[in-house]
Amino acid sequence: MKQYRITVLGGDMRSVKLSDLLAKDGHNVHTFALDNTGNIAQRCSELGESFIISDIIVGPIPFSINNGVYLNAPFHHEKIEISKIAEAAYLSQKNNTKLLIGGNIPSQLKSQMPEWEDLLTRDDLAVLNSVPTAEGALQIAMEELPYTIRGTKALVCGMGRVGSTLARLLRNVGAEVTVAARKSRDFAICEAEGINFCTYNELPKVLENIRLIYNTVPYKIFGSDLLDAVMPDSLIIDLASMPGGIDFDYAAAHHIRAIHALSLPGKVAPVGAALIIQKVVYNILNEKNI
Amino acid sequence: MKQYRITVLGGDMRSVKLSDLLAKDGHNVHTFALDNTGNIAQRCSELGESFIISDIIVGPIPFSINNGVYLNAPFHHEKIEISKIAEAAYLSQKNNTKLLIGGNIPSQLKSQMPEWEDLLTRDDLAVLNSVPTAEGALQIAMEELPYTIRGTKALVCGMGRVGSTLARLLRNVGAEVTVAARKSRDFAICEAEGINFCTYNELPKVLENIRLIYNTVPYKIFGSDLLDAVMPDSLIIDLASMPGGIDFDYAAAHHIRAIHALSLPGKVAPVGAALIIQKVVYNILNEKNI
Amino acid sequence: MKQYRITVLGGDMRSVKLSDLLAKDGHNVHTFALDNTGNIAQRCSELGESFIISDIIVGPIPFSINNGVYLNAPFHHEKIEISKIAEAAYLSQKNNTKLLIGGNIPSQLKSQMPEWEDLLTRDDLAVLNSVPTAEGALQIAMEELPYTIRGTKALVCGMGRVGSTLARLLRNVGAEVTVAARKSRDFAICEAEGINFCTYNELPKVLENIRLIYNTVPYKIFGSDLLDAVMPDSLIIDLASMPGGIDFDYAAAHHIRAIHALSLPGKVAPVGAALIIQKVVYNILNEKNI
Amino acid sequence: MKQYRITVLGGDMRSVKLSDLLAKDGHNVHTFALDNTGNIAQRCSELGESFIISDIIVGPIPFSINNGVYLNAPFHHEKIEISKIAEAAYLSQKNNTKLLIGGNIPSQLKSQMPEWEDLLTRDDLAVLNSVPTAEGALQIAMEELPYTIRGTKALVCGMGRVGSTLARLLRNVGAEVTVAARKSRDFAICEAEGINFCTYNELPKVLENIRLIYNTVPYKIFGSDLLDAVMPDSLIIDLASMPGGIDFDYAAAHHIRAIHALSLPGKVAPVGAALIIQKVVYNILNEKNI
Repeated sequence: MKQYRITVLGGDMRSVKLSDLLAKDGHNVHTFALDNTGNIAQRCSELGESFIISDIIVGPIPFSINNGVYLNAPFHHEKIEISKIAEAAYLSQKNNTKLLIGGNIPSQLKSQMPEWEDLLTRDDLAVLNSVPTAEGALQIAMEELPYTIRGTKALVCGMGRVGSTLARLLRNVGAEVTVAARKSRDFAICEAEGINFCTYNELPKVLENIRLIYNTVPYKIFGSDLLDAVMPDSLIIDLASMPGGIDFDYAAAHHIRAIHALSLPGKVAPVGAALIIQKVVYNILNEKNI
Repeated sequence: MKQYRITVLGGDMRSVKLSDLLAKDGHNVHTFALDNTGNIAQRCSELGESFIISDIIVGPIPFSINNGVYLNAPFHHEKIEISKIAEAAYLSQKNNTKLLIGGNIPSQLKSQMPEWEDLLTRDDLAVLNSVPTAEGALQIAMEELPYTIRGTKALVCGMGRVGSTLARLLRNVGAEVTVAARKSRDFAICEAEGINFCTYNELPKVLENIRLIYNTVPYKIFGSDLLDAVMPDSLIIDLASMPGGIDFDYAAAHHIRAIHALSLPGKVAPVGAALIIQKVVYNILNEKNI
Repeated sequence: MKQYRITVLGGDMRSVKLSDLLAKDGHNVHTFALDNTGNIAQRCSELGESFIISDIIVGPIPFSINNGVYLNAPFHHEKIEISKIAEAAYLSQKNNTKLLIGGNIPSQLKSQMPEWEDLLTRDDLAVLNSVPTAEGALQIAMEELPYTIRGTKALVCGMGRVGSTLARLLRNVGAEVTVAARKSRDFAICEAEGINFCTYNELPKVLENIRLIYNTVPYKIFGSDLLDAVMPDSLIIDLASMPGGIDFDYAAAHHIRAIHALSLPGKVAPVGAALIIQKVVYNILNEKNI
Repeated sequence: MKQYRITVLGGDMRSVKLSDLLAKDGHNVHTFALDNTGNIAQRCSELGESFIISDIIVGPIPFSINNGVYLNAPFHHEKIEISKIAEAAYLSQKNNTKLLIGGNIPSQLKSQMPEWEDLLTRDDLAVLNSVPTAEGALQIAMEELPYTIRGTKALVCGMGRVGSTLARLLRNVGAEVTVAARKSRDFAICEAEGINFCTYNELPKVLENIRLIYNTVPYKIFGSDLLDAVMPDSLIIDLASMPGGIDFDYAAAHHIRAIHALSLPGKVAPVGAALIIQKVVYNILNEKNI
């Protein structure tokens, strides 16, 4: 395997584990803004160095917080402005820094880099990440429900990456799964794989038998009307990114258990999530022939 | 369910069964060019009537033979020119004929119809048809191989609709499946579903252990070089449309068993295939709000 | 459904839920020694009444604690001697009490009852209980491991009820499972279902690749020798009843993570476990034609 | 691997393939009564030699035909009486012939051999053979039915080795399977694996929705009463040994398609079936420490 000079910049526990995995593969790995995390790679003493010393910079997912103002670096002792990073990127250009990788990279930063790749637009990451997300979603149901998943009637709203992986996992564990979807293609996939399906219009009727409800669609699917159709003792787990697809206030007021489960890969499987990012980084290097 | 006036025009046994299924659902169904097939719907005595009498015309898959010159109507006693059908479509326009459905409809005919929908461009048909195709492909292997599918090392080239459905079916039956693919996305899907995968470059090495080979890719993947790497006693089943992905002459000359299996849905499951077309026709009517 | 007079006697949360389920099915249900548990059935004010008032007594699993001296009744405010229960059973004999059901019923008590059925010798209970046990075992691994179960190399020692259900569940979730077993029959079952297997002699070699180890065999399989072969970072989950199959002291001294997970059905799925007992009670009544 | 002197005696194509497999493993293999089958092992010129020359004799499954009078040897040019074989066994005793293996060995022969093992009483053979039997049963349905197995409502009568393997295979392929059984244990297994089940009393009602019926129970389950409840267009496949579980005359008279499928392993997967016998022979040698 070809060896690269890589800096892992900021990020959560996945970035820590990623830097370890890349170092174990023999790459020349540095980190910045991963203080006191016990990772094995060398640390850069300052931001500028982290860009100069490497050909590939792997930033966090998502790259920034506070509306793109600061780097997403929960382990760092102080906040790092994205503008400071853009400056470091600009200054490193005469050197041979080639590629910036990260999730939802701020445009200010993209404009200073010769090449960049946004992880959150990549299909391979979405597919691979759907596995820890689905397992985390299953784990929550196992922890919360007083009966087995086998035999439980479950609903999955949405047949995207997460929805389809979750529906298959629940079916494999023995739940009786129904998928709510919209497109003829999605109904066809359900039918071809032997998964029950319904339209969103049919949900009020379908919910009469459902004990475990997952939402993966980033729209307010479960407003007051649909929440009124949810059986008592049911559990709703919302996997859609903020603000999610549930009216949580209405659910709370009506004693319907609803959990907003975000960023499951990093929480339930930090090493597994880092392995996934590593694979996608290698895919990118391979595709770009770097 | 809303009732429609439908003519089933030409086609093979799937069209015969389709006309029965539609009639059983209560639609006003006519057929033309399905002579002596024992179907229950009324027959039109001549071509023009078949267009005037109905609002929806369902033609065959594929619509035409001989490079678009004649209708695909194996049960009819004589050949019907597409130009004659275009004429009938034109003459029926003052009436309320609304929609022509078929597989790869000739452009000459499209131009005479107010609305048409090509079945072979629809994702739902491709997904649903992948099931009888995969089952037919499994059935051939069961018939040809002197050992069980469970435990057999199998290769599937291509991770499109047919490839992915077939890989899952073989895995579910207990074969040890490897998928050859090209895209990071496809490798990710394999990994997320626990299916082994390789690149096409790795095939010569992978083939050393494979007893059952499926191709779904419409390119000459298995030329002389790769065929030389195929184990004796292996079986190759090519599912790609003509001319397929195998050098069949080279295979025959070197005593490598290779079967070109085309149009499996209609052959192994004519009623099942008709049910699928019926579903897709209903999907189309639903999407178009007819 | 035929209605019965049933007393649920002592037991843990499963007994509480069981009394609710039986009451919901319309039986005349009483409880004794389930204080302050919020169950809906009527309570007997004293032990003798609980035997006189019902035809079927369902005791706990296991029936007694402290070597058969006391009833297993964690919700009761005081200890109840088995000899007191035997006395109550004897005194109720002139009435029509017919059947005592429980797990490992003390022989002293059996001798006072006209009919009894031991739940822990029944195959249906063992099979059904293997599901919540396996799900609980999976849940622990999900909570403890920092990577996904999919792709994890796992070992299951023993191919009894729990071992086989667990091996299938892990395989269905995408783990790469190996079963260690002893009998030709068990190897044949593994092969017929596509699960890898090995003998216990092969374990030192097999363990080199294993990250997740389950034991279901009630013998000290994992002594110091085998524990020395366990990879660092591996997790051992012991499902065998006390004292289990692991040298926990040696494991602790050598920083090998080992968890003794007992009585999982009642812990992870109390309602599910109660549903299972209900089913088995109905099976018993059906078999005995009561 | 230890090398043995083995004679394969009579039998069908499985015995031919078995002799090849054993020879390829390096054993000293002879055959008798496998004329003109192209197998690679050396042939004994006469019966007596076949017993003297080897330590292990592997006879056919079943061992005899015509009520135990003749050896089951379809490839031999003349009939061989079992009494002749018993004589040869007796005469070879002073030599070191140790073990006779076969299916349902005639008692006359057993009494002349120091050790013998009946294949048809072995659990490992029953389990392993259930796989080619189930695959053969699936293949017949694929060939006979005009729709896909996925989505087909199927019934399996009996939850023994063949019934349970077949039910799992059909479920894995996407059929909607119901198992008819009798024992609480079997219902529990179905429930634990997510397979629908019913009692035999419920069959008349269940059959209203079934298109594909398998019987594995060697009793006349499907007499005229139950056959009257079978839907037109249904297919019955009987896997039970002669005389089977169907009133075939009544079925034929009432135009119900019923197929008696016997000895599927040898028919659909002769090499696979030989591999299974080889495995079981090795299991026997291993258990007996020969």
